Amino acid sequence: MDLAHSSSAAGRSRSLSERFRALRSASVSLVSPLSDADATIQSMPDASPAKWHLAHTTWFFETFLLRDHLGGYRLFDERWPYLFNSYYEAEGERHARAARGMLSRPSLDEVLAYRAHVDGAMEGLLGREELADLIALGIAHEEQHQELLLTDIKHALWRNPLGPAYGDLPSGVMDRGEGALGWIEHPGGIAMIGHKGAGFAFDNEVPAHRVLLEPFALSPRLVTNREWDAFIADGGYRTAGLWLSDGWAWVQENAIAAPLYWREGEAFTLGGWRVRDPEAPVTHISHYEADAYATWAGMRLPTEFEWEVAARNSDPAAGVQCDGLAVHPVGSGQLFGDCWQWTRSAYLPYPRFRPAEGAVGEYNGKFMSGQCVLKGASCATPRGHSRATYRNFFQPYQRWQFTGLRLARDL
Amino acid sequence: MDLAHSSSAAGRSRSLSERFRALRSASVSLVSPLSDADATIQSMPDASPAKWHLAHTTWFFETFLLRDHLGGYRLFDERWPYLFNSYYEAEGERHARAARGMLSRPSLDEVLAYRAHVDGAMEGLLGREELADLIALGIAHEEQHQELLLTDIKHALWRNPLGPAYGDLPSGVMDRGEGALGWIEHPGGIAMIGHKGAGFAFDNEVPAHRVLLEPFALSPRLVTNREWDAFIADGGYRTAGLWLSDGWAWVQENAIAAPLYWREGEAFTLGGWRVRDPEAPVTHISHYEADAYATWAGMRLPTEFEWEVAARNSDPAAGVQCDGLAVHPVGSGQLFGDCWQWTRSAYLPYPRFRPAEGAVGEYNGKFMSGQCVLKGASCATPRGHSRATYRNFFQPYQRWQFTGLRLARDL
Amino acid sequence: MDLAHSSSAAGRSRSLSERFRALRSASVSLVSPLSDADATIQSMPDASPAKWHLAHTTWFFETFLLRDHLGGYRLFDERWPYLFNSYYEAEGERHARAARGMLSRPSLDEVLAYRAHVDGAMEGLLGREELADLIALGIAHEEQHQELLLTDIKHALWRNPLGPAYGDLPSGVMDRGEGALGWIEHPGGIAMIGHKGAGFAFDNEVPAHRVLLEPFALSPRLVTNREWDAFIADGGYRTAGLWLSDGWAWVQENAIAAPLYWREGEAFTLGGWRVRDPEAPVTHISHYEADAYATWAGMRLPTEFEWEVAARNSDPAAGVQCDGLAVHPVGSGQLFGDCWQWTRSAYLPYPRFRPAEGAVGEYNGKFMSGQCVLKGASCATPRGHSRATYRNFFQPYQRWQFTGLRLARDL
Amino acid sequence: MDLAHSSSAAGRSRSLSERFRALRSASVSLVSPLSDADATIQSMPDASPAKWHLAHTTWFFETFLLRDHLGGYRLFDERWPYLFNSYYEAEGERHARAARGMLSRPSLDEVLAYRAHVDGAMEGLLGREELADLIALGIAHEEQHQELLLTDIKHALWRNPLGPAYGDLPSGVMDRGEGALGWIEHPGGIAMIGHKGAGFAFDNEVPAHRVLLEPFALSPRLVTNREWDAFIADGGYRTAGLWLSDGWAWVQENAIAAPLYWREGEAFTLGGWRVRDPEAPVTHISHYEADAYATWAGMRLPTEFEWEVAARNSDPAAGVQCDGLAVHPVGSGQLFGDCWQWTRSAYLPYPRFRPAEGAVGEYNGKFMSGQCVLKGASCATPRGHSRATYRNFFQPYQRWQFTGLRLARDL
Ligand SMILES: [Fe+3]
Ligand SMILES: [Fe+3]
Ligand SMILES: [Fe+3]
Ligand SMILES: [Fe+3]
Repeated sequence: MDLAHSSSAAGRSRSLSERFRALRSASVSLVSPLSDADATIQSMPDASPAKWHLAHTTWFFETFLLRDHLGGYRLFDERWPYLFNSYYEAEGERHARAARGMLSRPSLDEVLAYRAHVDGAMEGLLGREELADLIALGIAHEEQHQELLLTDIKHALWRNPLGPAYGDLPSGVMDRGEGALGWIEHPGGIAMIGHKGAGFAFDNEVPAHRVLLEPFALSPRLVTNREWDAFIADGGYRTAGLWLSDGWAWVQENAIAAPLYWREGEAFTLGGWRVRDPEAPVTHISHYEADAYATWAGMRLPTEFEWEVAARNSDPAAGVQCDGLAVHPVGSGQLFGDCWQWTRSAYLPYPRFRPAEGAVGEYNGKFMSGQCVLKGASCATPRGHSRATYRNFFQPYQRWQFTGLRLARDL
Repeated sequence: MDLAHSSSAAGRSRSLSERFRALRSASVSLVSPLSDADATIQSMPDASPAKWHLAHTTWFFETFLLRDHLGGYRLFDERWPYLFNSYYEAEGERHARAARGMLSRPSLDEVLAYRAHVDGAMEGLLGREELADLIALGIAHEEQHQELLLTDIKHALWRNPLGPAYGDLPSGVMDRGEGALGWIEHPGGIAMIGHKGAGFAFDNEVPAHRVLLEPFALSPRLVTNREWDAFIADGGYRTAGLWLSDGWAWVQENAIAAPLYWREGEAFTLGGWRVRDPEAPVTHISHYEADAYATWAGMRLPTEFEWEVAARNSDPAAGVQCDGLAVHPVGSGQLFGDCWQWTRSAYLPYPRFRPAEGAVGEYNGKFMSGQCVLKGASCATPRGHSRATYRNFFQPYQRWQFTGLRLARDL
Repeated sequence: MDLAHSSSAAGRSRSLSERFRALRSASVSLVSPLSDADATIQSMPDASPAKWHLAHTTWFFETFLLRDHLGGYRLFDERWPYLFNSYYEAEGERHARAARGMLSRPSLDEVLAYRAHVDGAMEGLLGREELADLIALGIAHEEQHQELLLTDIKHALWRNPLGPAYGDLPSGVMDRGEGALGWIEHPGGIAMIGHKGAGFAFDNEVPAHRVLLEPFALSPRLVTNREWDAFIADGGYRTAGLWLSDGWAWVQENAIAAPLYWREGEAFTLGGWRVRDPEAPVTHISHYEADAYATWAGMRLPTEFEWEVAARNSDPAAGVQCDGLAVHPVGSGQLFGDCWQWTRSAYLPYPRFRPAEGAVGEYNGKFMSGQCVLKGASCATPRGHSRATYRNFFQPYQRWQFTGLRLARDL
Repeated sequence: MDLAHSSSAAGRSRSLSERFRALRSASVSLVSPLSDADATIQSMPDASPAKWHLAHTTWFFETFLLRDHLGGYRLFDERWPYLFNSYYEAEGERHARAARGMLSRPSLDEVLAYRAHVDGAMEGLLGREELADLIALGIAHEEQHQELLLTDIKHALWRNPLGPAYGDLPSGVMDRGEGALGWIEHPGGIAMIGHKGAGFAFDNEVPAHRVLLEPFALSPRLVTNREWDAFIADGGYRTAGLWLSDGWAWVQENAIAAPLYWREGEAFTLGGWRVRDPEAPVTHISHYEADAYATWAGMRLPTEFEWEVAARNSDPAAGVQCDGLAVHPVGSGQLFGDCWQWTRSAYLPYPRFRPAEGAVGEYNGKFMSGQCVLKGASCATPRGHSRATYRNFFQPYQRWQFTGLRLARDL
């Protein structure tokens, strides 16, 4: 099946079953620190309630697997697809995105019952080889929503003047290994980009194709809070010449003077308000801020192609990624983890890209306008979800994800 | 004390204690059909979460009674006044009104604990005669919020596509007694307006003063759904000449074509979606709609003075008012009850009006701009709360309260 | 004819002819300092281009006099009624108010030709007695637009960073006569309000009727720039407790800290930027500002009824009013002139008010919602236009008219 | 000088002088059909008044040539740089873009006098070889504004209900030569992109660099009105699946159902309202519309690199481009002319791109965010202005330029 671009390894279906069950269980554990009310509120149109994430990912399996492929399956509730479809036009009318916070009903318990119902029915499909790609897509989809659930609840809790914590942050200090790595240099030339062969990938990662690169170098680590403080101290947010025109307008209109979640000496984290660690990677910055910082530093953002080529041989499951609940970037010497890394690349289709037929074809292609590509993985990304060819994308002003910055320069 | 304008009858303090306890208990029972999530969401900036109403009314007692008058009282939580102050500038900074729906914490249970704590401490003040007026003000204040809690949760549940019910509606059909009453005629002349003498009243009801009235007549009952259907069928919402200029702009911009909560043949009620009763009073109409209807009917809205004079000898506790939970206008032959009745009077200070000193002086006076007076009481008004001199007020476009219309004409 | 409420004095038609010709000529002279471009631009939706005022007042005569009453009259241009109808719904669709500044065509010269054409045709109607009331209405209408033309062009020129002058200001210093007048005291009681008998009046000034007044006093002169400076120095714009709730929100949202057109030590006038005269009346203030000042001064705004009763025997044509081109408030001991004076009265219909039949019935009645009454006359009011019963009205936030403040207090 | 990337051919300065004089004269002739009022109005924030274009292009020469390089030069008016700086932050504060329509002063005549003054002073610099690149930049800059002047005045005249014409359209029917050309096929491979060597180019066209292309084909001609009618008839504007997500939101919010300037059977042109020619290229479409059409047609938009490579050997001065006043796309067999052609490429910097030092460095680089590249030239482009490496760019929703569409497909 085109969308998922998976290999057909023997024994995959068993592993897929296990992965499905682990995934579904992990999502539920993410809401364990939350009350029904916590899981209901929506703090901005870009964010969704935790409860909605749990239900929407379940709707995905119910719709594209159970409804379409399990004979005799009855919907858990016929009114719910209207509530929990996100943006699939082909699936009909749906509840307005900005009004997801109005759904005090169904309750969190009812949503959990929905999950159990769908999980039970899914057992009948997990072994069907011809559905493996679609199930893998559903898993990858839910992993994405696990990350969104964490960043969305962080935003919601931050808007509460009481500043409640979602959970405990890891207390140990990571070996950041700054000394270990030098600038990552690359001689340029023709490089292969995109996914090919075994393993799952989204449709926006294919077809694999060649690009021409000039010689470049990537910074060995992400820009830190200490460095960002220097940017601020040097008037970075008040110097028009450092900014893209749209970025400067955004700074002026929103009176931006620091990353999101900063206040004097502190930052809001999933563990509540904490003193900022100067050596940790700066996070919650927009593309505009990342670009201005790079200009200030006399460098630039990497392209998505440069980043992908540099990361080809790195372990995508290494670094600071999400294994449990409360997460926070602390820094490491890895290419993956801590923060998604803004590139200067616009999110556009690869040559000969074709969306899949049907509703799942709306997964990626229609968003290829006005957004920027991010590479890597963040502290909130389920470990194992990302890879070198992965293309994350957000609007250039958005910064409630764990976004950060790795510098590049020409050689 | 000026604000409350109460009489000092012997034994009042005991009755005040009983009223306080009954009031506080009634508020809690209003949230019995609601989950923590239901009580947390805010469906528009004009509305507040149910939980917030419970906490804000408690903050009023904690601040103006316990903090100011109970030696050694410690705040339940020092961070909560910031959350639950509504608009008292003299009480300092406060949480933004439009962001009240972000407060998933404190939980409903914590708010109920807050109420119990304050209720306990209040026992030490209930017998103090010099505080009786301030306590009576706190009671009247909480009664207002009981009505708002009902209208706000109605709005929130309506925004849920599942259309959940808050509770059961009364099933019995009321004797509407239409035949009983004819037009209420009045010969005009000098009349006394406003509150004087015994009993509680808000500061906006004084000083009592004289006004000159022309001869007029008031309709014996409220305009009904059946009559409103005729207005619609006659093109009422499409005929510019019937509308105030601001009203016509409001109709155009918001594509208004029916009262709030109407859909084909049905209306949303606290009992969920129900078939509309043609003989019940029309409700959830704006001042603009009421004015346009009156013009269409060849009549006009009454002034607040006409209404008050006509109602002087009516029982303000009669009619369809709130005794329990789910409420709905069904019609009666009374002047009070079913729906608040729009007047053509702007909400302005009475001659020689003076706001009270201190924060409670912000209770009414500062809102005397741009709003319209409503008289009577609605099905959601706690029975006993209103009186002939009562001045309710809302913006002319607002219609999520149980608002209705009684016609007037010149004699 | 009801609308104009005029007397039928012998010889009126001749005088009406003369008044018509003088009026029409005066309007044209108002644009003598303006280029076609000056007369085309629209600086905000509340304001209209000078050219539009010239054409719209002509459209009024063409439509309600020539078209309706002159046999065989042909429209000057059949497409222009669409352009120059202001708000008469009964006259059909019209050009959007906010887009009046798009009309670089027709040119100012073409509009002047339109005026000449209509003036010529009007000669055939000026002697017809049965049209005298309608012609008087057209004259009063155009006088209103003469004032708006001046206040609108002032706003437009102010928005130009070059700060061009419309004309020379009168240089002589007026005898302000402050000493001459004491507080104007009135014992209260029953008073007649509104227009009755001979002379033109708008429909909103009738029917005459009685009101009851409490004893009050009016300040002998308008509040001055010097006094306003003291209000500012005392933190008037930063003290929430002085303001109506809507007013405080307006101050915060718009960062209001001074009257419109003020900058350090200067004010923009029709003569360009000028040093402020501390003894001249403060002008270009909103109702909110006027109300806050009165509260700060320990007084209040008068009601429209108090003002009218106090002014009954004053000469409405005295004081600083408009005789020529450039105008500015300089102060005088008169009740009329310099600035329109905000009252605390909402703009509402008088008892038994009925709009006229047909399109001219839209003149006043439909605006009776959300606005405040102003009394007197300003330096831009054509001398002879106003009278004690005159009811001017604007939104409480508007301040581009020559608006000012006279204090009142209870006796 | 880096910015202009010009060759230093002998005799260039003389030709530059001639080009300068011809350019300056051509700009003035563009306003010959306009009154001062026409040249003053601003119909939307994206557009500027004709007068402003004349003055701003003059300010560019006055600032970067005369002020910086002509000893003893005195500014024509010291207050005007504030008015006529467009977006150069390094040149200080400036008049708000959206308020350019407030400038009834200076008059068109005064602006023409400004032009004459600057032109005279420029004679002293035209022969200086070291300034040739900067002068060439000023010329290219003014050519861009000539095109904007035409598209902006078209928009302004369209907003006038009278629909006035700017001038006569060419009446002759062009030989469109559709039969002449087949699909333009290209085998892909490594191609050089960007400007190198002799001749002027903007800084965004360099450095020249290599890209890898897949085999592709370009349509021989632009999509026509007839074809667009078929798209509409087939429900193109109502079919979500054809649109980018941002595009679909734009269609919904703005109720888009046809290209800009269309009404039943007609289109607004610089010659007023005209019957649409079905064989002429469709124009005034957004990127979103172009992309949706291509999807509907089973094809795609070309990349900017594909277009540039295909056009390398075409004559950039051929086709329907601007030689005189009134212009309109009529169709031809050329790659250049008629309409700017949307590509699927985001407007991003070329590898090793560096903005110039100083204020002129703000010319292009800071706009490299959120915009789309267009290639070719339009009927309003001064003939000789464009070239194969030229990168025009606009926001994907903008469509008041003469924008059109050439299809591409993979081979
Ligand atoms: Fe999803
Ligand atoms: Fe309250
Ligand atoms: Fe008018
Ligand atoms: Fe420019």
